[in-house]
Amino acid sequence: MLRSGNDYLRSLQDGRQIFVGSRLVEDVTTDPAFAASARSFARLFDLKRDPEHASTLSFEENGERHSFYYLRPRNTEDLRFRMNGHKIWADASHGLFGRSPDHVGSFITGMTCRPEVFDVPGHGFKDRLLAYYEYIRDNDLYVCYATHPPQGARNYSSDSKTSFFESPALHVASTDADGITVHGMKTLATGGAFCDEIWIGNLTPLAPDRTREAVTCAIPANTPGLTLWSRRPSAQAAASAFDNPLSSRFDESDCMLVCENVKVPWSRVFTIGNVELSRAIYMETGGHYFGNHQSNIRFWSKLQLIIGLANKIAASAGVRGIPAVQDTLGRLAAMEATIAGLVHGQIAAHGRLGDGHVVVNQRIMYAALSWCQENYGQICATVRELMGGVIFQMPADVSILHDDALNDTFQAYWSTDKETALDRMKLYKLAWDLLASEFGARHVQYENFYAGPPFLVRAHSMREAPWTAFDDKIERLMATYGTGDALPMAAE
Amino acid sequence: MLRSGNDYLRSLQDGRQIFVGSRLVEDVTTDPAFAASARSFARLFDLKRDPEHASTLSFEENGERHSFYYLRPRNTEDLRFRMNGHKIWADASHGLFGRSPDHVGSFITGMTCRPEVFDVPGHGFKDRLLAYYEYIRDNDLYVCYATHPPQGARNYSSDSKTSFFESPALHVASTDADGITVHGMKTLATGGAFCDEIWIGNLTPLAPDRTREAVTCAIPANTPGLTLWSRRPSAQAAASAFDNPLSSRFDESDCMLVCENVKVPWSRVFTIGNVELSRAIYMETGGHYFGNHQSNIRFWSKLQLIIGLANKIAASAGVRGIPAVQDTLGRLAAMEATIAGLVHGQIAAHGRLGDGHVVVNQRIMYAALSWCQENYGQICATVRELMGGVIFQMPADVSILHDDALNDTFQAYWSTDKETALDRMKLYKLAWDLLASEFGARHVQYENFYAGPPFLVRAHSMREAPWTAFDDKIERLMATYGTGDALPMAAE
Amino acid sequence: MLRSGNDYLRSLQDGRQIFVGSRLVEDVTTDPAFAASARSFARLFDLKRDPEHASTLSFEENGERHSFYYLRPRNTEDLRFRMNGHKIWADASHGLFGRSPDHVGSFITGMTCRPEVFDVPGHGFKDRLLAYYEYIRDNDLYVCYATHPPQGARNYSSDSKTSFFESPALHVASTDADGITVHGMKTLATGGAFCDEIWIGNLTPLAPDRTREAVTCAIPANTPGLTLWSRRPSAQAAASAFDNPLSSRFDESDCMLVCENVKVPWSRVFTIGNVELSRAIYMETGGHYFGNHQSNIRFWSKLQLIIGLANKIAASAGVRGIPAVQDTLGRLAAMEATIAGLVHGQIAAHGRLGDGHVVVNQRIMYAALSWCQENYGQICATVRELMGGVIFQMPADVSILHDDALNDTFQAYWSTDKETALDRMKLYKLAWDLLASEFGARHVQYENFYAGPPFLVRAHSMREAPWTAFDDKIERLMATYGTGDALPMAAE
Amino acid sequence: MLRSGNDYLRSLQDGRQIFVGSRLVEDVTTDPAFAASARSFARLFDLKRDPEHASTLSFEENGERHSFYYLRPRNTEDLRFRMNGHKIWADASHGLFGRSPDHVGSFITGMTCRPEVFDVPGHGFKDRLLAYYEYIRDNDLYVCYATHPPQGARNYSSDSKTSFFESPALHVASTDADGITVHGMKTLATGGAFCDEIWIGNLTPLAPDRTREAVTCAIPANTPGLTLWSRRPSAQAAASAFDNPLSSRFDESDCMLVCENVKVPWSRVFTIGNVELSRAIYMETGGHYFGNHQSNIRFWSKLQLIIGLANKIAASAGVRGIPAVQDTLGRLAAMEATIAGLVHGQIAAHGRLGDGHVVVNQRIMYAALSWCQENYGQICATVRELMGGVIFQMPADVSILHDDALNDTFQAYWSTDKETALDRMKLYKLAWDLLASEFGARHVQYENFYAGPPFLVRAHSMREAPWTAFDDKIERLMATYGTGDALPMAAE
Repeated sequence: MLRSGNDYLRSLQDGRQIFVGSRLVEDVTTDPAFAASARSFARLFDLKRDPEHASTLSFEENGERHSFYYLRPRNTEDLRFRMNGHKIWADASHGLFGRSPDHVGSFITGMTCRPEVFDVPGHGFKDRLLAYYEYIRDNDLYVCYATHPPQGARNYSSDSKTSFFESPALHVASTDADGITVHGMKTLATGGAFCDEIWIGNLTPLAPDRTREAVTCAIPANTPGLTLWSRRPSAQAAASAFDNPLSSRFDESDCMLVCENVKVPWSRVFTIGNVELSRAIYMETGGHYFGNHQSNIRFWSKLQLIIGLANKIAASAGVRGIPAVQDTLGRLAAMEATIAGLVHGQIAAHGRLGDGHVVVNQRIMYAALSWCQENYGQICATVRELMGGVIFQMPADVSILHDDALNDTFQAYWSTDKETALDRMKLYKLAWDLLASEFGARHVQYENFYAGPPFLVRAHSMREAPWTAFDDKIERLMATYGTGDALPMAAE
Repeated sequence: MLRSGNDYLRSLQDGRQIFVGSRLVEDVTTDPAFAASARSFARLFDLKRDPEHASTLSFEENGERHSFYYLRPRNTEDLRFRMNGHKIWADASHGLFGRSPDHVGSFITGMTCRPEVFDVPGHGFKDRLLAYYEYIRDNDLYVCYATHPPQGARNYSSDSKTSFFESPALHVASTDADGITVHGMKTLATGGAFCDEIWIGNLTPLAPDRTREAVTCAIPANTPGLTLWSRRPSAQAAASAFDNPLSSRFDESDCMLVCENVKVPWSRVFTIGNVELSRAIYMETGGHYFGNHQSNIRFWSKLQLIIGLANKIAASAGVRGIPAVQDTLGRLAAMEATIAGLVHGQIAAHGRLGDGHVVVNQRIMYAALSWCQENYGQICATVRELMGGVIFQMPADVSILHDDALNDTFQAYWSTDKETALDRMKLYKLAWDLLASEFGARHVQYENFYAGPPFLVRAHSMREAPWTAFDDKIERLMATYGTGDALPMAAE
Repeated sequence: MLRSGNDYLRSLQDGRQIFVGSRLVEDVTTDPAFAASARSFARLFDLKRDPEHASTLSFEENGERHSFYYLRPRNTEDLRFRMNGHKIWADASHGLFGRSPDHVGSFITGMTCRPEVFDVPGHGFKDRLLAYYEYIRDNDLYVCYATHPPQGARNYSSDSKTSFFESPALHVASTDADGITVHGMKTLATGGAFCDEIWIGNLTPLAPDRTREAVTCAIPANTPGLTLWSRRPSAQAAASAFDNPLSSRFDESDCMLVCENVKVPWSRVFTIGNVELSRAIYMETGGHYFGNHQSNIRFWSKLQLIIGLANKIAASAGVRGIPAVQDTLGRLAAMEATIAGLVHGQIAAHGRLGDGHVVVNQRIMYAALSWCQENYGQICATVRELMGGVIFQMPADVSILHDDALNDTFQAYWSTDKETALDRMKLYKLAWDLLASEFGARHVQYENFYAGPPFLVRAHSMREAPWTAFDDKIERLMATYGTGDALPMAAE
Repeated sequence: MLRSGNDYLRSLQDGRQIFVGSRLVEDVTTDPAFAASARSFARLFDLKRDPEHASTLSFEENGERHSFYYLRPRNTEDLRFRMNGHKIWADASHGLFGRSPDHVGSFITGMTCRPEVFDVPGHGFKDRLLAYYEYIRDNDLYVCYATHPPQGARNYSSDSKTSFFESPALHVASTDADGITVHGMKTLATGGAFCDEIWIGNLTPLAPDRTREAVTCAIPANTPGLTLWSRRPSAQAAASAFDNPLSSRFDESDCMLVCENVKVPWSRVFTIGNVELSRAIYMETGGHYFGNHQSNIRFWSKLQLIIGLANKIAASAGVRGIPAVQDTLGRLAAMEATIAGLVHGQIAAHGRLGDGHVVVNQRIMYAALSWCQENYGQICATVRELMGGVIFQMPADVSILHDDALNDTFQAYWSTDKETALDRMKLYKLAWDLLASEFGARHVQYENFYAGPPFLVRAHSMREAPWTAFDDKIERLMATYGTGDALPMAAE
């Protein structure tokens, strides 16, 4: 079943507890801080039902149509179908929704491609996971996740932290026949204001004795006892849609999750008390790979947006023909082709997974993550250099256009021979909003940390690299010559 | 005469015309967008009169006390006195006021150290300049400047652009016995909302035939016909002083200058109709060197602020002892010492100027400008990497602290073993405001462009370098060996 | 027909004129400067005939077996076959032979996939090209190329340079019924000492009136009148195979081509007198794309060698477990996966070419070229940082191992608890030879310039990018909001 | 007493034992691997006696003239005198002698400016140091040093390594009434082939229990039992002075020091058995600061050489007028001014030391070290980019110029309209020798490691930074606002 955007918006009116500072948000679909972004999400749902996208954003299984990201791929074509779906969705949100429904949706789909990892004796984890997968797929639910302990909690030495009072990290407070009670804080539910369900888990490795925190479960966003603490919504600093077309409409939200004695039924508990397993479910299934494949593609969309802006700005400033600017644009174009190549490459060099499934090449996927992380800030800086100081020459906000006398002056003085003052202002406001507003700063920080800090992302590459094969190469080369070969000789 | 902060604030209530969008600012000292920053400027004035700074922020001449930046230096001690004054003032505004009164004040003082450059036959430019210097010095006025044409105007080919309708760039519309009438737009009066006087000129080289734009003059900020078009004030996006302690209080303002038939008396016209001279007055006097020396020192202060934040953040996150973090802090400390060394070095290696004056070493000064320009963005990025995603884990704003129940939860969950939730929030909000708010983004853009785009700053270094001496070095080396020296031999 | 290594070596004894300084090389297969590298090339030929590689390094057509790089690809499988062949060959020469036979071989094969570009009325260029393709394929010849004017020639203004005396660039001196006579210099025949044939052409765009230089032809390496001027062979500086295992055995040679009235039969002339066509034959066929696809893959092999060395050095120094070193290795591993991904990606996202052929994605291929160019020097620097100063602690050369007393001391003092002195010396000498010998320096320069200087490589990306599509993206976004939308609203 | 170059050369014929591989060097002043560089050193001695440099390279004390680097500075003038001397000497060797006599000479002079650090009760270390200072000063001796354990030795855990067989690091084997016996290996005596004396010590911190290695002493280069193991001398790979004008004449040598039961009299033992003291003598005196100040200045000279080459190459290639090249040259010029500024700055901001002496500002000196380390490789890469592939277009070696026929062809084809083939070859050979020969590669490695690996150099900056002052700055700022200041307010 594919929900309509309106269905989705209605489901958000569920009594969830979101705090913006001390203010309780009554209804995210009407709250000025969230309403516009909620509608941007709703549009993604409508797009899936759009007949134009019938063959690209959904697939049929057992007579039902499902969202593209629930497809469990069995061949290259399936991987391409998924890639294409991610790209269309990311384009529709300009790559600004890092945790759109296809992110965690892909994690969970990836897990079900090798569900035996969950198959711990005496537990029904595997079956629960598969049931949950069907539940969110069949009801077209938007799942986001919170999978890290709060900063302070990480510093606690593992030996002494056994009670809640010493660590605020979410943990299992008690269990009974119906389920478990969790208590504490988890970071950071990106998309938390707009999702249906929140997956709680541990992507950050836990110390061996922190078994009480080693719980993986899922809860609805309106679960009693759960409160979401939002960072400052970017719409609050937006002057208007014209002045801040992105921060006013594409803020996916980031929320701290505070659970005060929240009850979770056993059917929604996927691991418990097993530190290793609580992380293995991502790395030993397709979870981490399908999920971050979506991230690569989403970045690709955003990069296309940025490069388009660079080109428009160069044209607006009348410098597009200058060799140094051509060089900059050529370099940006090469970067766009690089992420495109890395996305295609991880499909071409895919691997096998579980029983008959395929998975994107994880080494290339991690390499792409690192590449994006290393380059996003610099790309933004490059385009900002193209902008120069022009943004500071623009009037403070759109109101200038509504005052006839001032607008006349504005059009007379700010227009160039190629472009009206209005068009220039619209372009520079858009670019500034993407690259230099607080919203833009959040994106720089996000690209640098959403998949973990850079050293952790590189650690994935370290883990997955075939070091023995690399060493062998050296050893074979070194075996072709010795100390006695005093004169130059050919390689054997 | 040294004015008090209150005197200064009163003088700002002079009927100047500043537009924020379509809104006319009635009084910058009470307008919510400007009031707090105006008080921050006022504090600089009070500091000069503070007995504690009697020997550092002012000097006596002819029985009057004058601001430190009006001292015309005759020896190393004088240069050190000026450096010290700039540093104390920059520290008081945390390096956030790029165009504090000592910037253009130093330009004009530097010009008077070699005033004969103004000495064009048949004009009284030199005397007017010296009189103007005494006027602003003796009345303790704050001068800012607007010295570039608007972007669109630059693209106009010089052959066809002779009337106002074809180019919005400020130019001389007519002259008469009393003075001149200027008309058009100039960019970008940083500090324009808070200054007493605006210096209009041409740091951007003009095409040879654009003589009508080649005017240098000064006008009071409330001159009839002059309107100032402000970019969006950063205070507008600030939630509170706690949430945005810098953007709410240290926004120096950037304004476009629109002159509609503005009359300027001859006594305030310093060059007219001479394209070369209109630029030479900066480069062939001490103007550009003293003015940008202030910029170097102001950057130094800001860097100290940033490095202090880096250290605090590392301590707050409990990672200060980690080797990689030590290495980062060590690198930042080395960078602070680098700009300190470059400031000291340009004094130690000073040159002579005009009749008995000395000037900071311009090559080192330009090198420092380039160094700052190349490194500021990266320094900010480094400290933002130290911050990680913690800022997004903080509540939206200070209001959380005023709700007892929520505040209790906040203190319980967000505190760490070393620091209270409140202290963490205060620190991260400050760092975010400096490094990632729209105010922070403006600073990145500012550091990259206030002295011209990077390639222009490097062009100053190209212009000033002793290429012949460098070539000689090579030629002397190459003269020590020839083609006949088939065997290795010693250098002669 | 696939030649054996011995057949190949014999064919090099053909009287070609190679000068090393003033010394005429009599026989490259025995000359100490070239013999070892000749044998390394010969090994590539033998590898093609090795039964183990029957299905990977050759294919059958019309009952004959041909080298893999002559396959004209019609589908993904064919592209993968080619990629695999390039990789095996590059591995066999450790990525050190930039212009191995599969480079220009791929250029020419790519041309034949869209030969109609050559089809100029009144000429038989197309048929000659196809015939030449069959000739080199069927005789298993090694073709290299020289396709740029010498540096001095580039500066000549096009209006005055019509005679040889004014420009040394190779040009058509005369034509007759049998063919043409070419005269002048061409740069730079990499592989020139070891090839069978030299392709002469123009990858550097020519000024419109330089029609006499607009000639494309092919000549055997021993053509009368042709002399090859070699740069200093790296084997000359090599102390021994042990001390310089790569520079002594894997120097592909770089030669200036001097033609003094060299006659070329019409059958080997592929364009003449047409400036545009002389370049279009590379860009509008598959030439530039197949040829540089090989370059990407060759780089991949070299990167694997370097990363293996990095890992070995970290282990040898006992620092592989240090977090900072793990981070460095992880980053290098991600880089290796990046080039792997870009190679795979350009096959996955391939395009159509000519009549039923396919071609690697040129945008990704150019992006990979840029990526390699931007990163090679830094990768080498990274691994050199891992080496520290240890190389300078090693004895001068292998002779130390042949003196019993000194060797005893060496083994006693230079061994570590994990590794013998001999093994350490062998490893560091290898790494130094690759990364810091003159041979290594040539490779840094080569990677930076073999495909043109960086700005030219970026210009290819500029040329091929879909700017209109990028602009459209921005325009569609900007169409979703206007000046009247004063309040935040959702995206449509 | 100032020795002549000939005196110096004669003193090198002292029977010292240097091995190049297994070859024992009989006489460094005639050995082809060392003779030319020995003469380059000798020239430095002659320069000191040159009347032209009487007031810059030497000073008078007690009726004797001494080398400039032995001056114990008491004021800014003295520091400037030293700076000037270092610069003249560095210019004479083009910055290529990192360990010229003024390096360790400055270390020891710096120690004597605060000799009380050596004043351990019961030892005469302080007096011996002062006596040694007078000895080397009065006899104009060239001292170099070896102050690190060999790589393998560093990995040994401190608990088990008490016998020679377990660690090759130099240590005290025994003591008696006359002195001590040292045994083992030390790295890396740069200049070892050309010095008079070798200072043995510990700049690398030792583990607390490695007291036997905590010895500081000095021995003549020809001490019985001492052997020097040279890395490969760069002159061995040089083709001629024309082809390799620097590697053939400016190789300062790097030698491993192997001591087999070497006896050192007590008068030359400066610390023994005290791990902390063995390092404090550098950091708590002026040793490390004066010594590395010389390094900064020496780098400055080298940078001037490189920038001159860049300018010459740009001119030779006819591209000096291209904006991108102007930009590159401007950036290089700014870098030269940066190191100049940092050198001047550390004198201007000097500190006090011991009893009436002054010392360069150590924070700026360390910042300069880091700056050089971070930038040298990139500077070289930049100039190599300017060179492009032209070097590979040049004949292999100078012999081409001695063959009339070939030389005619060379001059005809390789000349440009502005420059002869010979001049071009000479320039490119020089640049290549500096930037890309094995000699050049050694310099890259040297600049990166001579003062320790980059993280250690940054650790000096970490150690010396005023963190409390930086923190105070933040705390004072944070004290100006609180949680109650809900509205923007001015800074106090």
